[in-house]
Amino acid sequence: MDCDHIAIKLRYIGTAYHGWQRQKNAVTVQQIVERAVSGALGSEVKVTGCGRTDAGVHAKEYAANFSAKCSIPCEKLPLALNARLPDDVAVLDACRVSEGFHSVFSCVRKEYTYIIYNSRLRDPFYVNRACFIPEKLDIGLMRQAAAGMTGTHDFAALRSVGTNVKTTVRTVYGFDIQRSGDIIKLRISANGFLYNMARAMAGTAVYAGHGKIGPGEIEDILRSGNRCLAGPTMPADGLYMTRAEYEEEPVRSMMDGRG
Amino acid sequence: MDCDHIAIKLRYIGTAYHGWQRQKNAVTVQQIVERAVSGALGSEVKVTGCGRTDAGVHAKEYAANFSAKCSIPCEKLPLALNARLPDDVAVLDACRVSEGFHSVFSCVRKEYTYIIYNSRLRDPFYVNRACFIPEKLDIGLMRQAAAGMTGTHDFAALRSVGTNVKTTVRTVYGFDIQRSGDIIKLRISANGFLYNMARAMAGTAVYAGHGKIGPGEIEDILRSGNRCLAGPTMPADGLYMTRAEYEEEPVRSMMDGRG
Repeated sequence: MDCDHIAIKLRYIGTAYHGWQRQKNAVTVQQIVERAVSGALGSEVKVTGCGRTDAGVHAKEYAANFSAKCSIPCEKLPLALNARLPDDVAVLDACRVSEGFHSVFSCVRKEYTYIIYNSRLRDPFYVNRACFIPEKLDIGLMRQAAAGMTGTHDFAALRSVGTNVKTTVRTVYGFDIQRSGDIIKLRISANGFLYNMARAMAGTAVYAGHGKIGPGEIEDILRSGNRCLAGPTMPADGLYMTRAEYEEEPVRSMMDGRG
Repeated sequence: MDCDHIAIKLRYIGTAYHGWQRQKNAVTVQQIVERAVSGALGSEVKVTGCGRTDAGVHAKEYAANFSAKCSIPCEKLPLALNARLPDDVAVLDACRVSEGFHSVFSCVRKEYTYIIYNSRLRDPFYVNRACFIPEKLDIGLMRQAAAGMTGTHDFAALRSVGTNVKTTVRTVYGFDIQRSGDIIKLRISANGFLYNMARAMAGTAVYAGHGKIGPGEIEDILRSGNRCLAGPTMPADGLYMTRAEYEEEPVRSMMDGRG
């Protein structure tokens, strides 16, 4: 069969889903998207996502790809698919890709953003959309800890066990922390993330902000490879996938666009 | 009984509720708040709200008051009540008021904000939080129409029938329209709002933005008192109560605070 190879840019609220990846007894984003694509194209289509986000994790920008006979032009795909998707999942854009394109393996850089609502009282509008921390956080200490987690390191101490990976070495290109009013955003970009790595890095920065971990200890924690020495895995509802970068055009431009 | 008179500042997501006002067969915000206050104070307490928001309407800042024997100091009331409230309703602040204070009758000025998500494709993060309009809107025309609705007028053409009011004359102090990216905010402040008035004003501005109503027609529409000539009552999920103002201290300061 003559196949079309297509990449799509997605946005979703993860609250109602058990993560991205297809599961037998739980509803996942992948299932929902595969059902929409299959329905629109009239054949059973498998959709590959750029990462397994966990249950409750959101995506502002998520890339996925599929190969199938597709008679709908790319510019009309978002509307055609959105008509078949629930309100909490949307396709923002679509483009053709090469046969060899793969959302995971072709990805050169990913970014996650962890959002903390840091105020004495909780705010209904941030429930399920940010992690509520009423205690004071020292942004300066958090930034120092974040700097210690930047660079190429073995991140074994900052991930959960449970997936097979060849190496636990990753390169963190940036770990930026900004406060704006009661909102603190932790933006982490890397060439790849181990299981729960973004949430463990956020938890370690939060522990530093509470003074429970000294910024100078980060180096030792990383060297130890001991998960127990680092901060906790933060709750899923504060985590957003915010970027997936590719070198191949036009996927690169599609993911760059604000669409 | 020696009573304490207390005002509270509330914030809530209206999606799960049939508006503010107590109803027999539906869950409302008033019921939820009364249950929390009664539970915390150990007696049955009636809570008066500053307005009947409709089903699905949100509140960023909402004022309510009650009279009861209250042994909890005001600064501890928010935490005590929030512990008894669901995640989508929160008390932000509390203060003592005079015996004559009444959330509705003491209110000198209210503000509603209508939020439109104006983009070709819907965004999951704005579902239930804004009204999605994919068509282009001319902000200049909307602003001209808004100016026509500002001032003291008979607003009979811009409300739904269904409540008894002595007069349909109200003074709109300001109707400000701002676009920021895909978000358009319509901020309306007035000395009072008739039933569905904010949503009818928003709908009339939207019709002007689509060119369906000329800004010059607003005067005639108001003069006619004919609801059919104005724009539609916009969906509830884009509407937020954003301000309630009082002259009595310390309520005035409490509602002014960012709390």
